[in-house]
Amino acid sequence: MNIAIIGSTGYGSAELIRILEHHPYTNIASLVTSSQTGESMGRIFPHLSHLSYTLKELDVERLSEEVEAVFFAAPPGVSSQWAPRLAEEGLICIDLAGDFRLDASAYEEWYGKKAAPATWLKQAVYGLSEWKAEEIAQAHLVANPGCYPTAALLLLLPLLKEGVTEAGSLVIDAKSGVSGAGRGFKQTNHFCEVNENHFPYKVGIHQHTPEIERYASSIAGRDLKVLFTPQIVPMSRGILVTAYIPVTGWTSSQLMELLSESYREAPFVRVCRSGEWPGTKQVQGSNFCDLGIYVDERTKQAVGVAVIDNLMKGAAGQAVQNLNIRMGWPETSGLNLLPLYP
Amino acid sequence: MNIAIIGSTGYGSAELIRILEHHPYTNIASLVTSSQTGESMGRIFPHLSHLSYTLKELDVERLSEEVEAVFFAAPPGVSSQWAPRLAEEGLICIDLAGDFRLDASAYEEWYGKKAAPATWLKQAVYGLSEWKAEEIAQAHLVANPGCYPTAALLLLLPLLKEGVTEAGSLVIDAKSGVSGAGRGFKQTNHFCEVNENHFPYKVGIHQHTPEIERYASSIAGRDLKVLFTPQIVPMSRGILVTAYIPVTGWTSSQLMELLSESYREAPFVRVCRSGEWPGTKQVQGSNFCDLGIYVDERTKQAVGVAVIDNLMKGAAGQAVQNLNIRMGWPETSGLNLLPLYP
Amino acid sequence: MNIAIIGSTGYGSAELIRILEHHPYTNIASLVTSSQTGESMGRIFPHLSHLSYTLKELDVERLSEEVEAVFFAAPPGVSSQWAPRLAEEGLICIDLAGDFRLDASAYEEWYGKKAAPATWLKQAVYGLSEWKAEEIAQAHLVANPGCYPTAALLLLLPLLKEGVTEAGSLVIDAKSGVSGAGRGFKQTNHFCEVNENHFPYKVGIHQHTPEIERYASSIAGRDLKVLFTPQIVPMSRGILVTAYIPVTGWTSSQLMELLSESYREAPFVRVCRSGEWPGTKQVQGSNFCDLGIYVDERTKQAVGVAVIDNLMKGAAGQAVQNLNIRMGWPETSGLNLLPLYP
Amino acid sequence: MNIAIIGSTGYGSAELIRILEHHPYTNIASLVTSSQTGESMGRIFPHLSHLSYTLKELDVERLSEEVEAVFFAAPPGVSSQWAPRLAEEGLICIDLAGDFRLDASAYEEWYGKKAAPATWLKQAVYGLSEWKAEEIAQAHLVANPGCYPTAALLLLLPLLKEGVTEAGSLVIDAKSGVSGAGRGFKQTNHFCEVNENHFPYKVGIHQHTPEIERYASSIAGRDLKVLFTPQIVPMSRGILVTAYIPVTGWTSSQLMELLSESYREAPFVRVCRSGEWPGTKQVQGSNFCDLGIYVDERTKQAVGVAVIDNLMKGAAGQAVQNLNIRMGWPETSGLNLLPLYP
Repeated sequence: MNIAIIGSTGYGSAELIRILEHHPYTNIASLVTSSQTGESMGRIFPHLSHLSYTLKELDVERLSEEVEAVFFAAPPGVSSQWAPRLAEEGLICIDLAGDFRLDASAYEEWYGKKAAPATWLKQAVYGLSEWKAEEIAQAHLVANPGCYPTAALLLLLPLLKEGVTEAGSLVIDAKSGVSGAGRGFKQTNHFCEVNENHFPYKVGIHQHTPEIERYASSIAGRDLKVLFTPQIVPMSRGILVTAYIPVTGWTSSQLMELLSESYREAPFVRVCRSGEWPGTKQVQGSNFCDLGIYVDERTKQAVGVAVIDNLMKGAAGQAVQNLNIRMGWPETSGLNLLPLYP
Repeated sequence: MNIAIIGSTGYGSAELIRILEHHPYTNIASLVTSSQTGESMGRIFPHLSHLSYTLKELDVERLSEEVEAVFFAAPPGVSSQWAPRLAEEGLICIDLAGDFRLDASAYEEWYGKKAAPATWLKQAVYGLSEWKAEEIAQAHLVANPGCYPTAALLLLLPLLKEGVTEAGSLVIDAKSGVSGAGRGFKQTNHFCEVNENHFPYKVGIHQHTPEIERYASSIAGRDLKVLFTPQIVPMSRGILVTAYIPVTGWTSSQLMELLSESYREAPFVRVCRSGEWPGTKQVQGSNFCDLGIYVDERTKQAVGVAVIDNLMKGAAGQAVQNLNIRMGWPETSGLNLLPLYP
Repeated sequence: MNIAIIGSTGYGSAELIRILEHHPYTNIASLVTSSQTGESMGRIFPHLSHLSYTLKELDVERLSEEVEAVFFAAPPGVSSQWAPRLAEEGLICIDLAGDFRLDASAYEEWYGKKAAPATWLKQAVYGLSEWKAEEIAQAHLVANPGCYPTAALLLLLPLLKEGVTEAGSLVIDAKSGVSGAGRGFKQTNHFCEVNENHFPYKVGIHQHTPEIERYASSIAGRDLKVLFTPQIVPMSRGILVTAYIPVTGWTSSQLMELLSESYREAPFVRVCRSGEWPGTKQVQGSNFCDLGIYVDERTKQAVGVAVIDNLMKGAAGQAVQNLNIRMGWPETSGLNLLPLYP
Repeated sequence: MNIAIIGSTGYGSAELIRILEHHPYTNIASLVTSSQTGESMGRIFPHLSHLSYTLKELDVERLSEEVEAVFFAAPPGVSSQWAPRLAEEGLICIDLAGDFRLDASAYEEWYGKKAAPATWLKQAVYGLSEWKAEEIAQAHLVANPGCYPTAALLLLLPLLKEGVTEAGSLVIDAKSGVSGAGRGFKQTNHFCEVNENHFPYKVGIHQHTPEIERYASSIAGRDLKVLFTPQIVPMSRGILVTAYIPVTGWTSSQLMELLSESYREAPFVRVCRSGEWPGTKQVQGSNFCDLGIYVDERTKQAVGVAVIDNLMKGAAGQAVQNLNIRMGWPETSGLNLLPLYP
């Protein structure tokens, strides 16, 4: 199957290429960019110097002829414009940005941009692979989840579905490597500013807040709020989410068992043994999400931890997983990479 | 004033030397160790190669003649044995370990070691400089606070004193650089295991939990529990504590003002401006504690953040601050080092 | 083909598993260790927690029945004992340690250990894949090259073969990530000691010196000495070798062309364009070796740079490449992983 | 003494403030910038949030009234314009840029900018403190050495003065942390591009080449060329220079002794013991330069290593050392900071 990537100069795109270059059923037919057309991918990313891709500008007509599926790895605001047009041409669209994850008013409030057309907002399927496989299998447009929400929801949804908590709001303390902020420049991407540093940003106002709330509430069957605190860790890749869930009457091993049971068939979710906690490095470069949980009897709270590679399960990996599901290919096609360790 | 350091081969000791070597009122008269007697400090720590200190074994009698104050920078279990004897000889003892921070039963439960003698547990003054200056000024034995508790308490105590929350328990999500684990070897100190990694450990069972609870409860005037989640960040120095405090009727600016007001006279506590958050790098190598706070109206919780350098305000820096207070010297003596940035 | 790994608890073994787990023609039948028999691999390496390998002790007879090829990923001194026995049983042996790379006297001088039996030292084929493919294809015992020598020789051999220099000795200034020192503990593996640090070690006395000299001399057709300066860089993976080669009458573009020409058929060697230099990150997690070269007219020296991932092309990757060559499989089988970037 | 810093928003300026804020004889009277006038220093550098400096624009007249000495911490091309004017007003000028280190033609060739006025190029004194103290003591304008040249020359000059080598050119393989590239943005300053990466740049064409050559030749008493290879190491601070010096008839201990002897009176130069090598971390945050040397009998070359903190001895620290010398203050005034370790 011929595919295209739109927004080809960022880390998400490089990661898609890493996966798709050796995917058994896909062929990268077109790399599209608005900023560096005519440049070869190997000059933009030196690790790809042996490949011969040249970046092109977006041409909807040509694209519809050349490819059957499109990944959007562009910043917010691009896919809302183009994905509907391409989807209408019959292309499968998988959007790694946030343009189709929220309803129109939440999007405009949290992203400060104009929302995508209502009909397509409605048709878009939220691509949390382990929870939406049936809808993804039918989707024309997949809204690939954000990196933080992927980790948070994979941890929370089994607990919420089982009703382990009655809390109206949850604390989610999250930590991310720097690649989540993209390849562009800002003060906090400068090596000397991040290295040997750890700091919060956008506390309570990060745009992933309503995304977590929307899907957590949907499974919980009630309106659930989250207090979301993102923080930067001096590493390139990796997200660790620590969630605090008030519980009564549940033990650590019961919740561990609940998580294990929920993901028994899921090839990419692993649950830690009792007394162990996952670290981001153990999923580096892979599509795994590793979970750990513990019930603190003293304060009647469960502490849950989820780790993912933000560029894999948090972006490109899950996007390919969703294409696999959509096409009926084995879910792990192109994704059976073991983590890079150390 | 002649001083000694007991337990001289660790990072805490190296940091004490960095401060005391240029402290206007002290002279390092003796470096004591149990493991490498006869070795020169410059071979153990290459950055000190121009100094001529030689490590000696502990000799209580000689020490009482040579010095007037002793810093214990040894692992738990050493000061409980020796500090009482030295204090009885009239030496001022400042203990950087946890041996005198808890009551006997809590110590034995959380540290799994035999507690110090009851009379000295009672006489020891908890050395949180900004909150205990009067008692420290009279103390024979100062129990220097743990690194995490220092950050957590400097953030929480003004809020608890003012009664901003009625919660019975608080969530404290904490992150630390690797030097907190000491210079000894364990798997998680290996560069390749920590680098590009972020992971929790001892969740809910860390020995700093009862220390935070004890002093927070004391100021709150009621029994307060904390759920304490420590996590390792791939950096050498720095602690960041994120605390979640249920509040009603308080705004971000009111709490910011409350913090600023509480520490108006404190030379080492700085409060961030509205919309800003502190990072660990901005206190690196200094005795500062920087605070930030925000009230999330949506979930009725305050998020507070405190950063310190774990080896400075979290250990050696506060220890010297306490000696300054004890001796009536200017509180910043030897500690007016600006942070190393970047 | 069933294979075994002997010495299974180190980084080299973890990397072999990462490759072989998805190699189209191999099956990992046995993981052998002397230290942690009975333990599961997933407990030793958390990133492998979903795999079910259990470590066994070495049993030559059982191994000869179960597998056809063996990788030695153990420290020096293990393969010299066991590889001959296994090779005599007809197993293909690929040794990642240095036991079969030198003649007996050089080995004993530089490694300070007893050399392997002379007959097997003679039969062993040096596994520098791009230069020894014909002999490797016939080998019973492959001495997989060291990490530094792989980078140094891939850079130097085309130049020496062409006779671009008449120098009697060359300077090789090399830099390595920390994983080259293994997963065991020593002071300089401690995160806090390496992080934000850069330092030389074993200057002029590193055991890879005679290995580089032996094979460089062999291609040069004369006795060539190297002054080899290894240095540690605060990163997990990666080797960068900077070599200084006195030349006259050669331009940068001629040498670049010479390198490109030499490796035209080599799938894992890439040569940088004029004005570009390779960095270690652009080969991270892959089997690539990237080369750059420049002639400094002012001092009549060529500066050549080679980068590899020390655990891949410098160890496990090249070992699998050698098995591929030995078996007549496509050289890139199991190795077509793009670099992990960033 | 009132001083000013021109070019106040970079790392060099922040480091000058770190030193001068507690220097016994100086007062920071003015911070000058062209880019962010009116901004407070504490907003530009969060670690300085407790200080109340506000940035001003350059006003030569006011400056001449307010201060007696000026540090230029601006990019090349600024001091060449302004330092002569200020020096003519009688101010002591210390330039951290390269504008007064070379003769006019070399400057214009290597920097690609117009050189400073010839009269002032001639009057400027090269501020390598340990070698030029007498001239610095009289100087109106000090050309503070570059970071790489400081390390390289402190290592080489004693050897060249003694005539240990007859070589016409030397290889200098140098490695630097990222702060040397400044606080501005470029691709290779991005955390994700540098972290876990090591790479060369500007090989053979770096503007510090002629600076090293000029002063090395001057001491050697003959025209000496260097092949200079700079490389980036993923750390914030630190430079390590490895120099290769052909020698005959000298042993390691003789050269070690020669270095020790040369710097017997120098408070900031330390020489490693036999068998030891310096690392960048052991000088972090301090004004030390640590040296190690070894003679490789096999190849008849000495390998010398020098480490400095590029922002201290390689920039701000040496600049203050030069002011101390110029004013007749103790050379270590404000600079007696021990290295930050770890």
